[in-house]
Amino acid sequence: MSSVTYEKVGVLGAGAWGTALAAAMVRANRETLLWAREEEVVETINTHHENTLFLKGVALDPKLKATGLLEDLSECDAILMVSPAQHLRSSVISLKPYLKTDCPLIICSKGIEVTTGKLMSDVMAEVAPKQPFAILSGPTFAAEVVRGQFSAITLACEDEKLGNDLMDAIGTVNFRPYLSTDVIGSQIGGAVKNVLAIATGIAAGLDMGENTRAAVITRGLAEMVRFAASYGAENDTLMGLSGLGDLLLTCSSTQSRNMSLGKALGEGQTFSDYMADKLSVAEGAHTVKILHKIAVDRKISMPITEAVYRIIVDGEPVSDVFDELVNRPFTREDE
Amino acid sequence: MSSVTYEKVGVLGAGAWGTALAAAMVRANRETLLWAREEEVVETINTHHENTLFLKGVALDPKLKATGLLEDLSECDAILMVSPAQHLRSSVISLKPYLKTDCPLIICSKGIEVTTGKLMSDVMAEVAPKQPFAILSGPTFAAEVVRGQFSAITLACEDEKLGNDLMDAIGTVNFRPYLSTDVIGSQIGGAVKNVLAIATGIAAGLDMGENTRAAVITRGLAEMVRFAASYGAENDTLMGLSGLGDLLLTCSSTQSRNMSLGKALGEGQTFSDYMADKLSVAEGAHTVKILHKIAVDRKISMPITEAVYRIIVDGEPVSDVFDELVNRPFTREDE
Repeated sequence: MSSVTYEKVGVLGAGAWGTALAAAMVRANRETLLWAREEEVVETINTHHENTLFLKGVALDPKLKATGLLEDLSECDAILMVSPAQHLRSSVISLKPYLKTDCPLIICSKGIEVTTGKLMSDVMAEVAPKQPFAILSGPTFAAEVVRGQFSAITLACEDEKLGNDLMDAIGTVNFRPYLSTDVIGSQIGGAVKNVLAIATGIAAGLDMGENTRAAVITRGLAEMVRFAASYGAENDTLMGLSGLGDLLLTCSSTQSRNMSLGKALGEGQTFSDYMADKLSVAEGAHTVKILHKIAVDRKISMPITEAVYRIIVDGEPVSDVFDELVNRPFTREDE
Repeated sequence: MSSVTYEKVGVLGAGAWGTALAAAMVRANRETLLWAREEEVVETINTHHENTLFLKGVALDPKLKATGLLEDLSECDAILMVSPAQHLRSSVISLKPYLKTDCPLIICSKGIEVTTGKLMSDVMAEVAPKQPFAILSGPTFAAEVVRGQFSAITLACEDEKLGNDLMDAIGTVNFRPYLSTDVIGSQIGGAVKNVLAIATGIAAGLDMGENTRAAVITRGLAEMVRFAASYGAENDTLMGLSGLGDLLLTCSSTQSRNMSLGKALGEGQTFSDYMADKLSVAEGAHTVKILHKIAVDRKISMPITEAVYRIIVDGEPVSDVFDELVNRPFTREDE
């Protein structure tokens, strides 16, 4: 089916998700090179076939090679970018001198650039406007993907032909891509989900039950759709794997940092108490600031996001904010 | 706000859900009369304020009265119909002689009439075409609603004015209705969800992990949307409480009969083995037959539903059917 083959695939970023994606590429019979910032990761992958720092205890295929040199990615026919969202800009700038002009980048970073409010595709347009790219996003715990358990994921690309070729190159039976051309829409879910996971955690901490959990996720998805629409995204995309799918996964796992933060808040801790013994903050606590700003600027109704903002940023008591949330006048479901 | 008040509210059907709804009506300060088929239920509610048959151990408000006589509902200003979907037709026919002509029926039965393939609104159009009615559907475990825990639910009514009046009459802070005018769309989720819960259970029984669970629910929702579209429903409705919300709840609870059935199938039991010591079958095992028939008739792509059908009705091995499901050619997400 595919007219272009992507034999050599690079993966930039060797955290748990980058490593899992590299393992999936090896299973798709790609000659895979994983770039890691940390020497220890390069070393242990190449000699012990294990990422001791970020995926300890998982045996990797010896065919997977790691490197610490960006220039080693210059031979790649496609590169998966797995930098944290806040670092995608600098990663692409650093990588650019080594890129073939037609080498597509598959952006796996999820989030909004907090300093600019930009999506990853906007960042690409600024720093590498001629480079072809696609977005990969969906409900994927790294620990399951690295073990080859079944996962489905959205691959979004404006150029449908390129998207089809990439799908054939990276997909397998157990790592199943679904093609979309809605590049914008496919990025929104990964950015908004963490804030909604905090809200779901708060409801759990307040012991509000399963009906509430379903309601928070459903009404949260409605906020996500309204937010996405303001970027010109298609509604259907948000109902898919990158939107609802990822939201579901993030709001299901009690191990998620965002859920845990929310649960602690619901149980009565303040945000500053909770953070006292933490080294870093859950992603949603950052994202909520930029989401709230955009929602206010664009006049998008996002009451759940606003509630999380008031609790985390303004330090308002959880019970007051949630009481107000459920005491709003009854409304139409589509408003 | 409301120009019509619905002081006296009847609830027809005193299973767990009917009883929970009656409790919610009392909390909304309605003068509530619950009709029960079983003498024991009428007796224990009126004398001990407990439904010993269907919600044992939950104290009900002494203001809630029960009756075994349909004619006692004749004074009601609105009636919630909580019959099983397969019995709504006969319930409305029996009730009709006692109904005020302007008494709205709030249909709480979820499902498709298996013998005719009709929605509950079609049944209403046949047996009581002049009676005003609305649909109430959403993610609501009875055990949580009866205790007054927060729940959100869709109230759908073609007549928006009537919908608003009913919303004001039955809603409270912790039983929060959202208004929709998509009567058709609001009925689809409750009918399709049980089949998808079986599929989710199968994946759990096969130990496929959380990524798969999120994928089955998300791709399942896409089937639900396509199915709904063939009835003229609006997509957005399926993203709401009656669609996604109810689906989420049903696919989350390991106590659900449909999930349990699926799990047993995934773990290797055949459907007939599983049924050997059961008194009744999980709803989804019935529904899948009519869904599959409609999908085939209308040429709607519903691969997950088809998989459940082949496993339950045709008795094909789970592993074969699921292998085939994940081995289909890659496709667009919106197809």
